[in-house]
Amino acid sequence: MSKQNIQIAPELAVSEWFNTAKPLTLEALRGKVVFLHSFQLLCPGCVAESLPQVRRIERLFTNSDLQVIGLHTVFEHHAAMTPVTLKAFIHEYRITSPVGVDRADGTSDIPVTMRRYGLRGTPSSVLIGRDGTILHQAFGVEDDMAVGARIAMALAQPVSDATDEAVAGGCEDGRCAVSPDAA
Amino acid sequence: MSKQNIQIAPELAVSEWFNTAKPLTLEALRGKVVFLHSFQLLCPGCVAESLPQVRRIERLFTNSDLQVIGLHTVFEHHAAMTPVTLKAFIHEYRITSPVGVDRADGTSDIPVTMRRYGLRGTPSSVLIGRDGTILHQAFGVEDDMAVGARIAMALAQPVSDATDEAVAGGCEDGRCAVSPDAA
Amino acid sequence: MSKQNIQIAPELAVSEWFNTAKPLTLEALRGKVVFLHSFQLLCPGCVAESLPQVRRIERLFTNSDLQVIGLHTVFEHHAAMTPVTLKAFIHEYRITSPVGVDRADGTSDIPVTMRRYGLRGTPSSVLIGRDGTILHQAFGVEDDMAVGARIAMALAQPVSDATDEAVAGGCEDGRCAVSPDAA
Amino acid sequence: MSKQNIQIAPELAVSEWFNTAKPLTLEALRGKVVFLHSFQLLCPGCVAESLPQVRRIERLFTNSDLQVIGLHTVFEHHAAMTPVTLKAFIHEYRITSPVGVDRADGTSDIPVTMRRYGLRGTPSSVLIGRDGTILHQAFGVEDDMAVGARIAMALAQPVSDATDEAVAGGCEDGRCAVSPDAA
Repeated sequence: MSKQNIQIAPELAVSEWFNTAKPLTLEALRGKVVFLHSFQLLCPGCVAESLPQVRRIERLFTNSDLQVIGLHTVFEHHAAMTPVTLKAFIHEYRITSPVGVDRADGTSDIPVTMRRYGLRGTPSSVLIGRDGTILHQAFGVEDDMAVGARIAMALAQPVSDATDEAVAGGCEDGRCAVSPDAA
Repeated sequence: MSKQNIQIAPELAVSEWFNTAKPLTLEALRGKVVFLHSFQLLCPGCVAESLPQVRRIERLFTNSDLQVIGLHTVFEHHAAMTPVTLKAFIHEYRITSPVGVDRADGTSDIPVTMRRYGLRGTPSSVLIGRDGTILHQAFGVEDDMAVGARIAMALAQPVSDATDEAVAGGCEDGRCAVSPDAA
Repeated sequence: MSKQNIQIAPELAVSEWFNTAKPLTLEALRGKVVFLHSFQLLCPGCVAESLPQVRRIERLFTNSDLQVIGLHTVFEHHAAMTPVTLKAFIHEYRITSPVGVDRADGTSDIPVTMRRYGLRGTPSSVLIGRDGTILHQAFGVEDDMAVGARIAMALAQPVSDATDEAVAGGCEDGRCAVSPDAA
Repeated sequence: MSKQNIQIAPELAVSEWFNTAKPLTLEALRGKVVFLHSFQLLCPGCVAESLPQVRRIERLFTNSDLQVIGLHTVFEHHAAMTPVTLKAFIHEYRITSPVGVDRADGTSDIPVTMRRYGLRGTPSSVLIGRDGTILHQAFGVEDDMAVGARIAMALAQPVSDATDEAVAGGCEDGRCAVSPDAA
């Protein structure tokens, strides 16, 4: 991949966290691989396919330095998918990794992080490398085998290499040139 | 089945209906076969298994006189599973047959109809014959083949036979001796 | 179904039987419902889908008077699918109901029973009523729910009715006017 | 993994090849990753699970230097699983990667390569690294995600590293100390 194609993952904008004592930021997770999955609790494909796959990811990579993060990106039926309902949903579906509520800023039905990544809908996933770059972004659910292979390849990249590449990618002082918010 | 084992299906207690212009009662449906399925919108087994099966039932028996009825039997997370959320859920999951909200009467976390049938949890289903008797009641999801066979056998019973048996079962003037409410 | 559409199931032509002490004939099974399934041991769809479904049928209707019969209809790779290989296949796949080898008569790659029924390939299935008529014939595997419903409806038909209808259908003295062999 | 645990994959002993113009040897494949899958054409688990998984592996890693090899390890029903039947099986199941018939040497029902690897039955798989060492060996079918991750990690290992490790592993002049045949 040539340098001009490298895209630093935009920071998360989260109004409320579940399953974590303190808020997470991608910046603080630099050096780890991040699997970010976007869902809505009333999205049939999320419930039937992507969330079960997330559980399989958590189980398989349990002892690696992969960080799984859920993002509740509500872009429709806002009154129906409140944090109260989400909390019960997380309990019933036994979701154990951190889940953030994508921040609504009142300017759009689409929440902030979803806009930053240009996600087309739910379920979506973003694989972020140790250097903070987006390695893969997908709308819909992909085959387990491809997902496993992609995460393994991301984990196989040495931490030191990752840091070097991040600099090359143009990300400094927590601000990233290619981020939609940087404009 | 000897007469003393025949149990008339207790009447539904519903506070709000979706997907029907007017409220349904089992009494008015006498002569038809009824497949009543109890679910909660945050119940993983309902979403993953029983609701997809209900859609297959609707499709297969579309031209028969089978009436499918959903019952939203909320017995936990009441604040999370409101009618507002249910309405969006019904939309997203493309549920087209009538759905009633099982009536909460403030005396128990368990709603009225769920208590009348003694349902153990969700998903549950009740198959009601043309004569209004309970032909089969199950907690959990059963094999498609068995469900298809059971509904077909219920439909194969002539309407006239059904009426005779109902009388034999001890149900008169809309009051049924074996109903929990009758006591 | 009007009388002119009723088709009596042609008799089986079998060169070798497995899982039965004596040869089966449809004529001797009159009064029972028969589920005839046609397969080839090297047919991927048979192994992956139809044979597992046959096992589910056997399990569900174990105490009914349904007779399941397998028919090994070899129409290609004849040297590869010999009775020796079939015997091991039946053992490995735990097939417990009777299986007949569809008779090859040297006039065609397609064996005799397969020609009589006009089967398009494998897997195929034929549901035969108590009166010996073909109730349903299908190429490929159908949904479990539909298969369960169809068999249950066939079983729900009284034996005496069946006999009457068979006569109405034009079958006398073991010879059936609509059978391809009768011509 | 400490050096004493490293095991060089024993060479294949094959009496007949399909889907390849010339015989394959692991020695000639050194530098590539090899996914060796052992099956029998009458093995239900192979047909239902492992062979479909092999096709997914071939598809996902199509442009990598992974070599998939099938091994027909007949250890029962020898008369039923001849090369003639195997050839038709390979055709019907659309197997496109090379398949070798594990050599029977008349001293055992278990063929030679199967004995060399100590395979417990079918389906089994062996993942062999670029350096010729066994990275993973399994009886039964494992999750797609784990299989994808494991192959990706093997492919991520540089070729030069692999060669060094192979020497460290104790393999010289084509003879490998830990191979069962070397004794």
